[in-house]
Amino acid sequence: MKAAIISVGTEILFGQITNTNSVYISQKLNELGISVLYHFTVGDNPERLKEILEYSYSECDLTISTGGLGPTEDDLTKEVISKFFGNKLICDKKSLEHIERIAAKRGYNLTENNYKQALMPEDCKILHNYRGSAPGFVIEKNGLTAISLPGPPSEMSGMWESGVEPYLRERTDSHIEYRVLRFFGIGESELETRLLPLIDKQTDPTLATYAKNSECTLRIASTRRNRDDAITAVNNYVEKVYNIVGEYMYSSNDEEFNFVVGNKLIDEGITISSCESCTGGLFASKLVEVPNISKVFTGSIVTYTWEAKMRELGVRKETLERFSAESEEVALEMVEGLKRKTASELCISVTGVAGPKDISSEKPAGLAYIGISFKGNSKVVKICRHKNDRNANRYYFYMCMLNEIFKILFDRKKGRI
Amino acid sequence: MKAAIISVGTEILFGQITNTNSVYISQKLNELGISVLYHFTVGDNPERLKEILEYSYSECDLTISTGGLGPTEDDLTKEVISKFFGNKLICDKKSLEHIERIAAKRGYNLTENNYKQALMPEDCKILHNYRGSAPGFVIEKNGLTAISLPGPPSEMSGMWESGVEPYLRERTDSHIEYRVLRFFGIGESELETRLLPLIDKQTDPTLATYAKNSECTLRIASTRRNRDDAITAVNNYVEKVYNIVGEYMYSSNDEEFNFVVGNKLIDEGITISSCESCTGGLFASKLVEVPNISKVFTGSIVTYTWEAKMRELGVRKETLERFSAESEEVALEMVEGLKRKTASELCISVTGVAGPKDISSEKPAGLAYIGISFKGNSKVVKICRHKNDRNANRYYFYMCMLNEIFKILFDRKKGRI
Repeated sequence: MKAAIISVGTEILFGQITNTNSVYISQKLNELGISVLYHFTVGDNPERLKEILEYSYSECDLTISTGGLGPTEDDLTKEVISKFFGNKLICDKKSLEHIERIAAKRGYNLTENNYKQALMPEDCKILHNYRGSAPGFVIEKNGLTAISLPGPPSEMSGMWESGVEPYLRERTDSHIEYRVLRFFGIGESELETRLLPLIDKQTDPTLATYAKNSECTLRIASTRRNRDDAITAVNNYVEKVYNIVGEYMYSSNDEEFNFVVGNKLIDEGITISSCESCTGGLFASKLVEVPNISKVFTGSIVTYTWEAKMRELGVRKETLERFSAESEEVALEMVEGLKRKTASELCISVTGVAGPKDISSEKPAGLAYIGISFKGNSKVVKICRHKNDRNANRYYFYMCMLNEIFKILFDRKKGRI
Repeated sequence: MKAAIISVGTEILFGQITNTNSVYISQKLNELGISVLYHFTVGDNPERLKEILEYSYSECDLTISTGGLGPTEDDLTKEVISKFFGNKLICDKKSLEHIERIAAKRGYNLTENNYKQALMPEDCKILHNYRGSAPGFVIEKNGLTAISLPGPPSEMSGMWESGVEPYLRERTDSHIEYRVLRFFGIGESELETRLLPLIDKQTDPTLATYAKNSECTLRIASTRRNRDDAITAVNNYVEKVYNIVGEYMYSSNDEEFNFVVGNKLIDEGITISSCESCTGGLFASKLVEVPNISKVFTGSIVTYTWEAKMRELGVRKETLERFSAESEEVALEMVEGLKRKTASELCISVTGVAGPKDISSEKPAGLAYIGISFKGNSKVVKICRHKNDRNANRYYFYMCMLNEIFKILFDRKKGRI
């Protein structure tokens, strides 16, 4: 199968948003062994969309479009595709009920615009939207397939998982299996260099590194006729990779770091609390993304000022004056104060310089201290990665906090694969 | 002038990289008043690239391509474009010297591949690459223009600034000006419905709505010969829009809500502290994104459990037992406790059901209570937007918190445009 991805939306042509949908869909199609020949973006212009459809089908048998399914006047993707295939639009009862249910829940009245979203092409397969109102659909006719998805990335990806992926899996005769390993504490170049003996010899599975934010991922993928063969091939390589760079690997199943750490805390029943200065609640906020974390996470105290550090955590004024807030000593007093207050088994503190400006040459942006207390032992870890980007630093500090907890919770030589 | 942007590179079709070049170029072209009709992405495939060029020139008089100018065998953009225009490739002395200089600096010997980068189309304008080795170029012929740029974003943008921007400025006689307005508390459908009298009659400026996360934006753009005329036209429409839906508008210059609110707090010197249950520190974490917020923001107390709410904020056990944690009464006791503790001028609390599961039919996911205390007055606002998406709910609650503060800080009839 050969595919083209068509993004519909004038806002993309204005450069107002980055086209991440095409990235997601490209990755997913490639995983299914479907080649992507083109990405197209057109504005909310029916004539041009029609021509792009024609162009796509001159070489591809599958088009996947995103966007233009909304309730407003310039949302015309459904109309253009239906007309292209000669299918009428008719009201779909289930879709209408879904739209009415959403309106009732959110407490607004349906406008004429909203009803438009329930009109669907005749003889299409409807893709349910669990995260929004606009349904998607699949039309198959004369050997050509059109899949139309909503533009908002979360709705699109939700629909992909629930509807598109199972649909396409049935139609491809080779199986691609893959796993994404995640690493923290090692750069992409170094990861690739250390894995070169594996990467160089490979044809299947393929190994691809990717750097994002503060971490690296490695995708190991195998395409075989037989699904079990593909799984075995991937698993063998996961083990080979683990033997080389296992100390940096925190997930072998593409889990996010907060979920890995949060779920381990829940499983082990280890209570935790945090106090944060420069991360400003980011640690707590990310931990709270994990369902059921309330079983072990009591909360976080975000002490952004000296005064709050003294009042909430009992940090001494002399310590702040002598060493400054961004110091090993304050990180330690913070975590000790938190322990007295919450009696959590695991307490963690962070203080540092988010930036963007350096405070001084001794206190540059990117410097932070993490205090951690577990089973009666307290220690402070120094983090230093000079970068004048406030949010990147805060995110990195947060990841380092997870990493410190990870090191305590996991014996990396056991049960990590 | 009408333009198409062509990105060349198989790695984009694999979803390995996000196409940020198209975003950058779209923004720049729109600023110059050049309409972008298409984005295309093709792999390193000369035949398809040639066809896409032909397709582009059926409607556009300008194509801007990125990528495929490197030294490797699959870099073929220059060859395809030259052939398309019928211009031979000849060695360009200056480009060759540049490539030789770079090789000398970096200490490697030139391979045959590298010499390929100095072959340039006859009669083209060469664009110097200050950040890499591959030169770009412009070909003008028969009323059509092709601009070819390297793929690495920093090289592309460097060449844009030094070569492309001045070149295009000389050739355009119209200016586009635009502003992006941001709204909270109104859905995209309703926004469009209420603005329909303006949208329907419009030819210039154009108005386009866009929904993302919990908010909507409206882009007002005008293209005129004279820059001041375009600015005036846009500003007039900003005022018209404001008169219709001003109560929902929180920025007329595309600022994020946390920055609008945070900077206002800093400007007015109003001290603030927060206590959070279901948002888990998200409010604090987003407020801390604002530089200098430490001048007014002391911190947040993230009380995720009953025990933490009682210990940190003095919420009474009876209140929790009688009304549950997700109640108006607890939101009020939280904010009152916070006020006693921090003495901040503005105190805000939040408690609710993030989900994804409902607690009960009375306590569905998406229900939250925001307590707010300012100048001696405390009140609680109920939020209810039933959605079974944990992070979407948490984000929405956080935005509602900003909105409550916004309503207190701003007299919307003054100085908001």
